[in-house]
Amino acid sequence: MSAQTIDTTCPSAPGTVQDVAPVLPVASGDTFVPLVDGTSVRYANLDVAASAPALASVAARVSEVLPLYASVHRGAGYLSQVSTALYEASRQSIGAFVGARADDVTIVTRNTTDSLNLLAGCVPAQADGTPGRVLVLDVEHHANFLPWQRTGAATVLTGGATVAATLDAIEGELARTPYALLAVTGASNVTGESLPVADLVRLAHDAGARVLLDGAQLVPHRRFSLEATGVDYVAFSGHKTYAPFGAGALVGRRDWLDTGTPFLAGGGAVRNVRVDATTWHPAPARHEAGSPNVIGAVALAAACEALATVDPASLAEHEATLRARLVDGLDALEGVHVVHAWDDATDPVGVVTFVVEDHDPGLVAAYLSAEHGIGVRDGRFCAHPLLSRLGLDGGAIRASVGVGTAGEEVERLIGALASFVADGPRAQYAIVENLWTVVDDPRPVPAGSGLSGLFATAAAGFIAESAGCGPLPADG
Amino acid sequence: MSAQTIDTTCPSAPGTVQDVAPVLPVASGDTFVPLVDGTSVRYANLDVAASAPALASVAARVSEVLPLYASVHRGAGYLSQVSTALYEASRQSIGAFVGARADDVTIVTRNTTDSLNLLAGCVPAQADGTPGRVLVLDVEHHANFLPWQRTGAATVLTGGATVAATLDAIEGELARTPYALLAVTGASNVTGESLPVADLVRLAHDAGARVLLDGAQLVPHRRFSLEATGVDYVAFSGHKTYAPFGAGALVGRRDWLDTGTPFLAGGGAVRNVRVDATTWHPAPARHEAGSPNVIGAVALAAACEALATVDPASLAEHEATLRARLVDGLDALEGVHVVHAWDDATDPVGVVTFVVEDHDPGLVAAYLSAEHGIGVRDGRFCAHPLLSRLGLDGGAIRASVGVGTAGEEVERLIGALASFVADGPRAQYAIVENLWTVVDDPRPVPAGSGLSGLFATAAAGFIAESAGCGPLPADG
Repeated sequence: MSAQTIDTTCPSAPGTVQDVAPVLPVASGDTFVPLVDGTSVRYANLDVAASAPALASVAARVSEVLPLYASVHRGAGYLSQVSTALYEASRQSIGAFVGARADDVTIVTRNTTDSLNLLAGCVPAQADGTPGRVLVLDVEHHANFLPWQRTGAATVLTGGATVAATLDAIEGELARTPYALLAVTGASNVTGESLPVADLVRLAHDAGARVLLDGAQLVPHRRFSLEATGVDYVAFSGHKTYAPFGAGALVGRRDWLDTGTPFLAGGGAVRNVRVDATTWHPAPARHEAGSPNVIGAVALAAACEALATVDPASLAEHEATLRARLVDGLDALEGVHVVHAWDDATDPVGVVTFVVEDHDPGLVAAYLSAEHGIGVRDGRFCAHPLLSRLGLDGGAIRASVGVGTAGEEVERLIGALASFVADGPRAQYAIVENLWTVVDDPRPVPAGSGLSGLFATAAAGFIAESAGCGPLPADG
Repeated sequence: MSAQTIDTTCPSAPGTVQDVAPVLPVASGDTFVPLVDGTSVRYANLDVAASAPALASVAARVSEVLPLYASVHRGAGYLSQVSTALYEASRQSIGAFVGARADDVTIVTRNTTDSLNLLAGCVPAQADGTPGRVLVLDVEHHANFLPWQRTGAATVLTGGATVAATLDAIEGELARTPYALLAVTGASNVTGESLPVADLVRLAHDAGARVLLDGAQLVPHRRFSLEATGVDYVAFSGHKTYAPFGAGALVGRRDWLDTGTPFLAGGGAVRNVRVDATTWHPAPARHEAGSPNVIGAVALAAACEALATVDPASLAEHEATLRARLVDGLDALEGVHVVHAWDDATDPVGVVTFVVEDHDPGLVAAYLSAEHGIGVRDGRFCAHPLLSRLGLDGGAIRASVGVGTAGEEVERLIGALASFVADGPRAQYAIVENLWTVVDDPRPVPAGSGLSGLFATAAAGFIAESAGCGPLPADG
């Protein structure tokens, strides 16, 4: 398909997904953003794999419960009892959404990173007292890599080119060495692809290891069940599950969590504290020191409940349609290549990474934003080892879709890239403080944002360079 | 004062604070709650020291920014840039609110517990490689106690009966042993009292130690400045600062934070990740692995900005008036005793703990809720060592006020306690699953809460008994 065949003004061109509507409304669904030509356009958030907007129903739920919010767990006041009940009912909803077994524990965490740092403190030690061994692949997001690397007891297995080869490698390694845990992604945050869960569970359990599934990219896209799959632990994030209020979850087998290292030392996690000794609660309290994020938990539960009400077939069709169009449309463009972790993966979620030959990913991303109002991700997606193995140390571009994505956004992306490949950008771009930016960017800050400018990152001392997993630093 | 002299229907009885209005409106300010007699009453949240309601302006700010929310730090999309700017501007507001010096770092955490667990990983080791020594008092909240106890390098000093005696003890201990850090409360979460910050800073700095101030109960009540006081680090919580959206902060000296143990292992905290080695960013990115809680940070910044706009004299007068009435009113009741950590403390914040002779604190708290719509705290307030030293292993009752508190709430509490002391409760109460509850409680759950009942705690497997720092368990 050449650039000329793309007509983004046509609402129903054959083969396009222009008319595909979102499955559920989101809080930013009607947000217009400025373009460099002075016009504005409805924002196309194709970076939902990083952070998804709040569902409109989640935002409404938060507004609904705020007047009921008070202290939890020990307050005798009526609203404290209401807040406690809201929090604990949220815990149950979150667990139910991922098919928690009767004896599983649901811990409300901050996000997937938090969940996996917590679990890393709960893997039982080996008989000689050294940390329990964990097997991970090099395809993982840092959240499911660094916590294990830090224990000093992780083996990193290089993923094969195919699912079959990778499963063989896992089986071989599990046979060679006893592992406590196989920690593996439920869907790659780079390619949306995954290994078959049933095979992973069989291989691990046959070898006496448990399975942790990084559900950050899976749970927002697919119904998942611990009970149905036999997976032992699943972790996921509220901000990727349409509930960006600071709460995520770790759900799974009770025994490790009841006895593992308390995640944080603090009130609520302890039964009794003396000057010389402290006794700790079992899970979940053991790992939830400090006042919990009640509003975050309520928001996450509301998102889980909303997603659970969507017909799974509609959800799957919406996503499969958008993803197929994305992959086909990108692959058809001259010099645009979609990246794969496994050549034979089936049923990938709506996360697609690609490169544009001879063009810096950061430039392409800046162009898509400035000239088309499209938000994508560029960089190394907090998955440096995989990107490095794929020869992409310079980064790539990722587009991701979710329940709030309209087909028009996908068509706009493909049309914009076709135009870029054919004619290049119209505006001028330059690298400023390691970020591609528009030269003399005329775009204003949004009314009501309270901001005086957009680029506070560097001024605030934050590391713009690769804080969010950008390209490999020149001296890296 | 006897029960008969309290007339809670009189809006301007001499000596009362019946007419004192809140300083700022809060989201739960007009929430009515049911009483056991079938009537309802505006909720009196006198447990703000545990969790404060959202300011109305904070709730509005959250609603305002939700349509702008998108991925931060590496998203090239316009809304990603807006969200990044909102997050980093929030960081600056939060730091400015506590008088951060130019080179200080502001880390957005989950809450005070989180902040202090983070800092515990950043205290430099001693020359022999053992953890740096930390001096703490037994008066601390567990958040400022357990993280240090867990390092194995904390010395716990028993607080004296007076401020002067306690300062002497601190000075003596600092002279005996070299400490890296003196970790001390800015205001006791039990009594609202504190040691003079200027003296603490002088003693510690003279001895070559830094000062961490647990600001959880100070920052919501008083303007505080790192720069003005010379304090090295301050930690505080959003949920106690009228922004209950899962974000808190640690603010202070950069050097320890730039080189300390990264708090969580995960994306965003790292510069580059290889299979065999990882390089970490300096602060704040080093300690903010995983997608940050943007909405929580924006909410906390909004609260800081709102509090900063209140005239400090008005704020101080409001709180001093309510606290004085609370203390005087309670002390005047037969058998009611206000608890003190130091007999000579000055300028305490609006947190008052008391006991009612011969009555279980849990019963009193349940009565205040069920018959008067008042929320207080009972238990040991996550400060077990202090409660134990004060002979209060069975717990006590705490009433706390904030910017959203109306004088009527304080009068209602005093009146209700006067009635309790004189005549006892009218309803029947019993201990169910370790909590005092109304027998056959007729109070409905709130409309719109989505709850089928209030007492989900035990059903959800949470440890009601002392999760929120309740009384000492019978076998504790």
